Amino acid sequence: MDLEARRVVRIGIPRGEAYPMGPGKAALLEAIEQTGSISAAARGLNLSYRKAWTLVDTMNRHFREPLVSATTGGAQGGGAVVTEAGREALRQYRELERKAWAAIEGETHAFLKLLRPNDLQDY
Amino acid sequence: MDLEARRVVRIGIPRGEAYPMGPGKAALLEAIEQTGSISAAARGLNLSYRKAWTLVDTMNRHFREPLVSATTGGAQGGGAVVTEAGREALRQYRELERKAWAAIEGETHAFLKLLRPNDLQDY
Repeated sequence: MDLEARRVVRIGIPRGEAYPMGPGKAALLEAIEQTGSISAAARGLNLSYRKAWTLVDTMNRHFREPLVSATTGGAQGGGAVVTEAGREALRQYRELERKAWAAIEGETHAFLKLLRPNDLQDY
Repeated sequence: MDLEARRVVRIGIPRGEAYPMGPGKAALLEAIEQTGSISAAARGLNLSYRKAWTLVDTMNRHFREPLVSATTGGAQGGGAVVTEAGREALRQYRELERKAWAAIEGETHAFLKLLRPNDLQDY
């Protein structure tokens, strides 16, 4: 899905008041996968370390298995890896997004025709 | 769609930096339809009048035809009606939501199995 599609379809997995998974957490998982570090992932997404840590904590508390495994301390500071459970959750989440978008892509373009023509130019 | 489904699937119609339609604006349209008034609709949704007016203004500026027609002043204060174009936009928007949800309802329930069992009890 391109960025515009992700602006149209936002999937959240709600649990009580929390969202154990959603667009921000999925992006964070991908960034951790790429950087091997919560702090580097946070910087790349313009999140504070504290915010990124809270998102990871919410995921790890709600899923059966932790999605992110973090090691603290050591000479190089802590590292973090996305677990096998994390990769699977991310895969299933992206699939939900993809299927929802596939189901409405055509109708979304039809909906856009209700907007003013000058607005249509930048789509 | 029930409320839980609407927490899972959130559809927004983006246009540049703005969202001419989304969950909040759709709810506002419905409330205006029911109350005949922007201020009464705002109260029912716990929005300030200013916020509700801004949402209506954003819709009316982006769509080809105004979605809400408001009359100001008069002995009873202003009234507002959802136009035919507004009802059609609302109908198409709800259909987008419904189709997206139908496409992922089963997979969403499968995804929930990745969460801790004690979390599953309240679903």
